Amino acid sequence: MSVMVPQRGAQGSTPVSIVRVHRNEPKATEDKVATEEPLEIQLSFVRKGIRVVKSVSVTMRTPGHDHELAAGFLHTEGVISSAAAVEEWEETEAADPARSKGNVLRAVLRDDVAVDLRTMERNFYMTSSCGVCGKTSLEALRVTGRISLDPDLPVWDAARIGGLPAALRADQVIFETTGGLHAAGLFTADGALLAVREDVGRHNAVDKLIGSQLLNGAADLGSCLLLVSGRTSFELVQKAVMAGIPILAAVGAPSSLAIDLARQFGATLLGFVGRERFNIYSGAQRISFENP
Amino acid sequence: MSVMVPQRGAQGSTPVSIVRVHRNEPKATEDKVATEEPLEIQLSFVRKGIRVVKSVSVTMRTPGHDHELAAGFLHTEGVISSAAAVEEWEETEAADPARSKGNVLRAVLRDDVAVDLRTMERNFYMTSSCGVCGKTSLEALRVTGRISLDPDLPVWDAARIGGLPAALRADQVIFETTGGLHAAGLFTADGALLAVREDVGRHNAVDKLIGSQLLNGAADLGSCLLLVSGRTSFELVQKAVMAGIPILAAVGAPSSLAIDLARQFGATLLGFVGRERFNIYSGAQRISFENP
Repeated sequence: MSVMVPQRGAQGSTPVSIVRVHRNEPKATEDKVATEEPLEIQLSFVRKGIRVVKSVSVTMRTPGHDHELAAGFLHTEGVISSAAAVEEWEETEAADPARSKGNVLRAVLRDDVAVDLRTMERNFYMTSSCGVCGKTSLEALRVTGRISLDPDLPVWDAARIGGLPAALRADQVIFETTGGLHAAGLFTADGALLAVREDVGRHNAVDKLIGSQLLNGAADLGSCLLLVSGRTSFELVQKAVMAGIPILAAVGAPSSLAIDLARQFGATLLGFVGRERFNIYSGAQRISFENP
Repeated sequence: MSVMVPQRGAQGSTPVSIVRVHRNEPKATEDKVATEEPLEIQLSFVRKGIRVVKSVSVTMRTPGHDHELAAGFLHTEGVISSAAAVEEWEETEAADPARSKGNVLRAVLRDDVAVDLRTMERNFYMTSSCGVCGKTSLEALRVTGRISLDPDLPVWDAARIGGLPAALRADQVIFETTGGLHAAGLFTADGALLAVREDVGRHNAVDKLIGSQLLNGAADLGSCLLLVSGRTSFELVQKAVMAGIPILAAVGAPSSLAIDLARQFGATLLGFVGRERFNIYSGAQRISFENP
């Protein structure tokens, strides 16, 4: 039995043109960000004499070592106990032709490998194939028709960006005692901190924050800036855009897909925000350098 | 129309007894960690004249502000556009009596609020109610019967722990250029670094690493230590245990559920691993202080 392992390049980073700001001086430059793309893992197995194919997971991952990712996932979810269970790895065509071929990987199990469907149903996040897929979710965003960011507003002075992480940190109650939480904070156009929420999941912290404003009956968030304590992924930009927040700033780095999405919807995306420096990945027109 | 918002305490941290190690000196002490618990979000809405209830998400979150979390999630997923869409928030009983009542929250939508099921199917991670739920997933782990950690082996000298993050960092190719990736590394009992994998998702980095050993036909991982660059959640401990790895060490903090799970399965869990210090949250018998 031979195991065919597809060899893909470990293209973990993506080049990107950015504006690097140091002491309020902007400078256009080239940078590299971590690549983020959806991978759909499919399982082909024999059940009651019939070979069936099931999509078992869609995950946002950095391309490269995809067969290892699929093997490790199936192993730690209790589906396969050794590499010998897999007859072949297939890179299949995606149902959506706009999605790249390499983003669907199918583990073809040997005829005699039994799969407990109950285990699968119990353990897997059963995603539709487009639940977290970049391309289709982008379309889903369009569909809602709720996105109408003002292309030019609000405008933030670059000099005020550096102080935001300290303001957020001052309100992080739980982080101080545990060191284990993500935080998200919402700032108004005049720099006031509206609210802070914390959670073990960064997407949860953002959902709590946006939900707090929704339940408060707060006015629209179209003049606000959302600051997160960690890195920005596709998912966080999606949430900001869906809530009508035009500026997303992060203490950490963005992924490639976070930048793609921000640019597509005209949102401003900032990263590596520190006291004297930050990077602009998208929507630089909302950052002003007129008040040094 | 009145919106009932349940008020739960923001109990974001959980007290825990740990062993704090500083310069190879262990000291039993009390600490606090970020609380991690599953929350199931349910949606009650009227479709074709009939009121139906659907489970739309199970997320691992820090308890507190749960109604905000649910509202923000439903808003950023395009299900509700304002707080007025929700007639009432209900904390429902969980189907599994072992799960606490507060971990299921139902948004009861007004009769006249239309829900587009296609949007839901397109956007949501359709989890079974136990897909990521602590209690039931713990049972799922038992079921597989693949967990058989040696309760006493391997034994690591405390003095060798501090050097591990630097060894991991030296092999993080992509992080160096992007600053945006999680890393996971596997060390053998004699301290050699077997492999390192990186990904935008920390669970993906661990899956890749475990998958690499599975595809290599590597011997069992029962004498290995898994080091991750970030924080440890329930999910990462689950993966380590399923792969038979007895020691999980992290540069960051663990969640409460990560500790619970490690203790339940007799795994060793280390956190805040730095050059001169680290914390032991579970399985201290595998760390030796005999060679200072």
